[in-house]
Amino acid sequence: MNWPARVAIIGLGLIGSSLALGTRRALPDAVVTGFDDDEDVRATASAIGLCKVADTLAQAVVGANLVVLAVPVGAMGAVAGAMAPHLSPGTIVTDVGSCKEQVAQALRAALPDPTRIVPAHPVAGTEQSGPEAGFASLFKRRWCILTPDADADPEAVERVAGYWRALGAEVETMDAAHHDRVLAVTSHLPHLIAYTIVGTASDLEEVTQSEVIKYSAGGFRDFTRIAASDPVMWRDVFLANREAVLDMLQRFSEDLSALQRAIRWGRGDELHDLFTRTRAVRRSIVEQGQDDAAPDFGRTHE
Amino acid sequence: MNWPARVAIIGLGLIGSSLALGTRRALPDAVVTGFDDDEDVRATASAIGLCKVADTLAQAVVGANLVVLAVPVGAMGAVAGAMAPHLSPGTIVTDVGSCKEQVAQALRAALPDPTRIVPAHPVAGTEQSGPEAGFASLFKRRWCILTPDADADPEAVERVAGYWRALGAEVETMDAAHHDRVLAVTSHLPHLIAYTIVGTASDLEEVTQSEVIKYSAGGFRDFTRIAASDPVMWRDVFLANREAVLDMLQRFSEDLSALQRAIRWGRGDELHDLFTRTRAVRRSIVEQGQDDAAPDFGRTHE
Repeated sequence: MNWPARVAIIGLGLIGSSLALGTRRALPDAVVTGFDDDEDVRATASAIGLCKVADTLAQAVVGANLVVLAVPVGAMGAVAGAMAPHLSPGTIVTDVGSCKEQVAQALRAALPDPTRIVPAHPVAGTEQSGPEAGFASLFKRRWCILTPDADADPEAVERVAGYWRALGAEVETMDAAHHDRVLAVTSHLPHLIAYTIVGTASDLEEVTQSEVIKYSAGGFRDFTRIAASDPVMWRDVFLANREAVLDMLQRFSEDLSALQRAIRWGRGDELHDLFTRTRAVRRSIVEQGQDDAAPDFGRTHE
Repeated sequence: MNWPARVAIIGLGLIGSSLALGTRRALPDAVVTGFDDDEDVRATASAIGLCKVADTLAQAVVGANLVVLAVPVGAMGAVAGAMAPHLSPGTIVTDVGSCKEQVAQALRAALPDPTRIVPAHPVAGTEQSGPEAGFASLFKRRWCILTPDADADPEAVERVAGYWRALGAEVETMDAAHHDRVLAVTSHLPHLIAYTIVGTASDLEEVTQSEVIKYSAGGFRDFTRIAASDPVMWRDVFLANREAVLDMLQRFSEDLSALQRAIRWGRGDELHDLFTRTRAVRRSIVEQGQDDAAPDFGRTHE
């Protein structure tokens, strides 16, 4: 693959910096230029030699074959609008936002050529943020979902798919609205619940914060990992994918109420049935390589 | 430490088998005898050389200095009652149950000498079950909470504390009722929520099971780990610690409703504030050695 010769990555957080490193490793001949709105982030990115760092958004995108927007979803429209006048004809624009319907609308409104827009979402990440958090293999064996509109140029779609495959990802294509509902379950709702329970545990008057931390290995600590994810990114996700998130949350709350009732009335069989069923889901995730087979996520125990 | 010379471990699941291996490593001179009600478990334990395996509960406990009950909390009373006639005078009885008030009552009702009962709870585990899941270092640098009643013999308490320290654990003592409320937050509620969300995700009609599994790396997979824990153990925990679990669940539900409202009305600042606060909790857990500092729990990314 010798396309893209020039890639611009806008936003140098965890995903943007991983893209920079991954692209340089997978496509050593490509010129990778990065830009971030935050001057400190640009300085750090330069200092650690992440990629070529442009001083302005315009300089970053001019002449690029591919522009990847890796900014919080609430900022996509504004960034796309600001770079639009500087895009070269034929440049393909993609993004990495965690919800796709609202982002696609924002990109279409801001950019001159809808046929060159190929929204994407790599389902990968860690709880860390910033330009130093990235690593080249973040997308390996993870899924990247493309949600092109019907008028997207098939060649542009195939080029973006090839780019993600070069980074080690598996590529799937689906409708933006369906994407947003699937991810509401597999990503947004889990984050919302993790944030909530960590908040709940911090606010108790009779159990101290220090006790919560000391005894967190009983299960709580698992939730704190995703509750340490980037606050701005996640604020934007919940606001942008509101309807799907609220709908999934409603279903979760109903199921939780049912379990609450089962506990209150001592219906052990009901609990046991659910707890047996959920085991099988874990098994499938491990079998399909979407999580480590090692117990306890492979945490060290020595 | 040359006490206990003879240890009986009743119940050879994850915790019991880890205790057997840990005891043999830490106290090589001790005779470790195990027993499990399930014939297949006994056969496996023998075959893998876990420890000496007794054919009956009576044979396992006779002559022991320390008996550790590692059975589901709902079975503690019955097992204690069955072994009581066979206990030697002076034998100290402890357990590893995840809730302590109900277990302590069951042990007091079943056993002849309340001064020799020292209930304990090692806050450690993995999502795996059974005699082959155990490993000697499971308790290293984890907390073990003792909840002796006021009439427990201080020497017995100190002996049990010393045993856990020998296995690598840090020991804390607290009131059983307080233990049950602390663990309701740091362990029971997280498990309940994980079981619920995995159930919710499995029951959607528009998002397939296969999609849930494929895109689980967005956060969902974290929850599936603890939702793969032993169904009998967890059924019993929720039934035995009902009041504390329901109370914590009520607080969680209120907090979740507040977040739901913030999303519905687009109050981004409220979301951002919470998401910033929860980050600090994660940081403390890592600083205090209760979780890995490596991103993504140290999962491999190559």
